[in-house]
Amino acid sequence: MVRWEPGAEGRLQAAALNLYAERGFEQTTTADIAQSVGLTERTFFRYFADKREVLFAGQEHFEQVFLDGVAAAPAGASALDVVASALEAASAYFPDERRQHSRVRYAVISANPGLQERELLKMATLADAMARALQERGVDEAHAVLAAETGTTVFTVSYRRWMAEGEERSLAAVQADTLADLRALVLAAG
Amino acid sequence: MVRWEPGAEGRLQAAALNLYAERGFEQTTTADIAQSVGLTERTFFRYFADKREVLFAGQEHFEQVFLDGVAAAPAGASALDVVASALEAASAYFPDERRQHSRVRYAVISANPGLQERELLKMATLADAMARALQERGVDEAHAVLAAETGTTVFTVSYRRWMAEGEERSLAAVQADTLADLRALVLAAG
Repeated sequence: MVRWEPGAEGRLQAAALNLYAERGFEQTTTADIAQSVGLTERTFFRYFADKREVLFAGQEHFEQVFLDGVAAAPAGASALDVVASALEAASAYFPDERRQHSRVRYAVISANPGLQERELLKMATLADAMARALQERGVDEAHAVLAAETGTTVFTVSYRRWMAEGEERSLAAVQADTLADLRALVLAAG
Repeated sequence: MVRWEPGAEGRLQAAALNLYAERGFEQTTTADIAQSVGLTERTFFRYFADKREVLFAGQEHFEQVFLDGVAAAPAGASALDVVASALEAASAYFPDERRQHSRVRYAVISANPGLQERELLKMATLADAMARALQERGVDEAHAVLAAETGTTVFTVSYRRWMAEGEERSLAAVQADTLADLRALVLAAG
């Protein structure tokens, strides 16, 4: 009999992050995570393939937020403006209340090369999805790929700045500054 | 007794790439690789930590090529011009004779998420190294990180274009075009 546990997925995710931050990712087992919230390891595996994937649940939703931003850009917007629209949409996914959670998750990931690799693949997958969405808007492949990869770089750099200790600006504000910095960088080049 | 095998490292690398391309990465064992060039598995492990790392040997040299390009940029060059100098230096590391080898390696990597992740970490590590080198030249951290990440994006996009079937331009020429595309992209944005 498979029992449905209300909120089990979210409870397992929160418990996993706490344990990874306290004990280290390597030192935490799926049994530890499940037991800490009174669930079985079998329930854990009903929601997540392994203890790494707990940190990456929701990738489809994460990507969709950016793609909604692409769709929201006005017809005729330049490729980078479309990407900027995606980034603006994404900033709503990371309100300031989420900053502390993001910091803890980022610290856990930064301490483990395998997790870093997985995070990088998540961002590469996002860039591919945005490049396809730009092509569907009529941007040729080469420019779509470059705009999507550049936008993903702007997001990644901004996201890291947003999580820095002492940073108080919203992600939207940091992203606007990073885009302005990119413009200045390109204009200063010979 | 540890016997030194002349050229063993290079022979193992070439053999590994061939086997990965023919049979698939998952289907190839370290014993297969060693035996195919008349060596023992023990010799294999003297050079490589595992069968994945065979594809990523030489990362330090790869990074150093970019860093030499950073060092070669004239004093007072803008951050993106310094990065462009690094990319120009890197293009010498990928002459046209290497294009077919790069294509085979890229096909093997693209077929396997674990290898893709490792390749992404390699590029992230390169971006970090370039950001540090820019900071040592006096660029502030935020701009150094953005310039290094943007340069790495330009390299990655160009490298993929360079490997595309039918592409005949040199990597240096593709990179110059990608940098021009980036400039146009930024100038077209509102």
